[in-house]
Amino acid sequence: MDNVAVLGAGSWGTALAIVLADNGHNVRLWGRREEQVSEINEEHRNEKYLPGIELPKSIKASVKLEECIEGADIIVLVTPTKAMRDVLGQLKNSLTRKVTIVHASKGIEPGTYKRISEIIEEELPASLLEAVVVLSGPSHAEEVSLRQPTTVTVSSEKIETAEKVQDLFINQNFRVYTNPDVIGVELGGALKNIIALGAGLSDGLGYGDNAKAALITRGLAEIARLGTHMGANPLTFSGLTGIGDLIVTCTSVHSRNWRAGNMLGKGMALDDVLDNMGMVVEGVRTTQAAFELSKREQVEMPITQVLYDVLFNNKGAKQAVDELMQRTRTHEVEDVSSLKS
Amino acid sequence: MDNVAVLGAGSWGTALAIVLADNGHNVRLWGRREEQVSEINEEHRNEKYLPGIELPKSIKASVKLEECIEGADIIVLVTPTKAMRDVLGQLKNSLTRKVTIVHASKGIEPGTYKRISEIIEEELPASLLEAVVVLSGPSHAEEVSLRQPTTVTVSSEKIETAEKVQDLFINQNFRVYTNPDVIGVELGGALKNIIALGAGLSDGLGYGDNAKAALITRGLAEIARLGTHMGANPLTFSGLTGIGDLIVTCTSVHSRNWRAGNMLGKGMALDDVLDNMGMVVEGVRTTQAAFELSKREQVEMPITQVLYDVLFNNKGAKQAVDELMQRTRTHEVEDVSSLKS
Repeated sequence: MDNVAVLGAGSWGTALAIVLADNGHNVRLWGRREEQVSEINEEHRNEKYLPGIELPKSIKASVKLEECIEGADIIVLVTPTKAMRDVLGQLKNSLTRKVTIVHASKGIEPGTYKRISEIIEEELPASLLEAVVVLSGPSHAEEVSLRQPTTVTVSSEKIETAEKVQDLFINQNFRVYTNPDVIGVELGGALKNIIALGAGLSDGLGYGDNAKAALITRGLAEIARLGTHMGANPLTFSGLTGIGDLIVTCTSVHSRNWRAGNMLGKGMALDDVLDNMGMVVEGVRTTQAAFELSKREQVEMPITQVLYDVLFNNKGAKQAVDELMQRTRTHEVEDVSSLKS
Repeated sequence: MDNVAVLGAGSWGTALAIVLADNGHNVRLWGRREEQVSEINEEHRNEKYLPGIELPKSIKASVKLEECIEGADIIVLVTPTKAMRDVLGQLKNSLTRKVTIVHASKGIEPGTYKRISEIIEEELPASLLEAVVVLSGPSHAEEVSLRQPTTVTVSSEKIETAEKVQDLFINQNFRVYTNPDVIGVELGGALKNIIALGAGLSDGLGYGDNAKAALITRGLAEIARLGTHMGANPLTFSGLTGIGDLIVTCTSVHSRNWRAGNMLGKGMALDDVLDNMGMVVEGVRTTQAAFELSKREQVEMPITQVLYDVLFNNKGAKQAVDELMQRTRTHEVEDVSSLKS
């Protein structure tokens, strides 16, 4: 039985807290708002993020970071990428012992193009950081909270720490694999949100499953292209944190990136979409970061580029998707295929 | 403008006839039943297979094979794999000139484990066969008939023939790529129907998108494992005819293999499912063939094996999917990952 702090009481943080509580661990959940924390502690619910789900009574929430991390050897970080450095700064000031950080956030930082584990290692001194582990995979929070079968991957440069975290989370419904390829696991999880925006856009325009499958297939190719360029193992992109997470994010009604793309495809403006969502849409920031990174690294990412133009340069959604469908080169078996115009 | 015969007036044969007619070719469509042929010729409809779709008036249907193939240089074969040798026998007796065969059927023959192009080359003498081309990809017939954006791949050992067929079919909505890997294209198209049955089974049991994404991810791994063992290019399985077709078949309400699996998952017996479908469910025969082939070749295919037991050995659907979710080894990044029990 471990003491675990989960920092972030959104849908994914709360779902992971449920898994940990189901496994008998002492879970402290850090929330930002007093009323949400009261709802979790008193009514054992977190209605905004996991409507209808009864939380295990053992989950204790608090708005005080110090209270949540007291006595914890493992800290699960589930904050939006935008808030990551701020939360890590608070953590640095509050930590009194060396901890293992498990992060379950998906994104790349605009400007620095850093992955989350890089940001963590930058913000926390080595004296406070035992190891960093990333947890990723095809896992909608809603289904995890319903104890439906789910598989995820944990990845760390320290394999023994990854295995310790595997032991922490694994149970009959929540299956946990390990993979030593931190770069591939983090990039797959971050970049798929771009393709999910594109899949939503295509669906929002009224295009069908054929078009969406083509987009997802080419999306995987460009994720793998950038990922291997940045040092990832190409096989990771064929696994749970690559194609698995991409499928679930592009084809499920639960996905907020897909929903945002869908509203854009139906003609709503970006600002209205983001207002309407009321939750963070990581794919928007990630599109910007990946677009800039692909330029710097001279890696071809046509879907990312077109989506960047839709999000930030007022390109029309229909024109964007039509352009992608009619590109004159194939992107699948890059050296052997050809498309005539 | 070419003379093209399309043999098989089911949904996919009729959809391909529409594409060819849209491109201005003379299309003869071979149907089995007089009343279906009359419906196509007189009402320009094929209600059973493409409900609500108005067919181009230029499509002429006939129950007479000789009439359909007269003057045709290209014959598009869209018959169920079970009827393939029979149709090829009739074709052999009726052909009076050398033709290119484009096939768009997906399956492996039980007993012989032959791919469709191998069966064609076995049944037709070289004196009548210019070349064999396979057409495959993520393409529900219903969406193609609605002119929604669709991408497919054509593959042939003769690249110039593949390019000729690409020219024949390509238009603004129907994008055609080439790939020289015939083995990979045919095996990807055939084997994905097994995984679609499994995805339907999981959905029928009430499991969610997380479980289905895990199944699809592992399904791709076992398709690629058998495929590369049989001589395919592993990259083909990451393309349109691999993961693209797998996604569309596993996540779309149009897929009859998914629908059959779904009914099985809800507890219906196989015979009742097949009666209920009223159309050929290729995945059932393909599961049998792939199961036997994987045994002979000693290639590990856990999903195929479990589905074989569900279909032919009365294994319970829930037990089957639960077993798959709780296997103790990973199948994604085969040499670097591990799962603890």
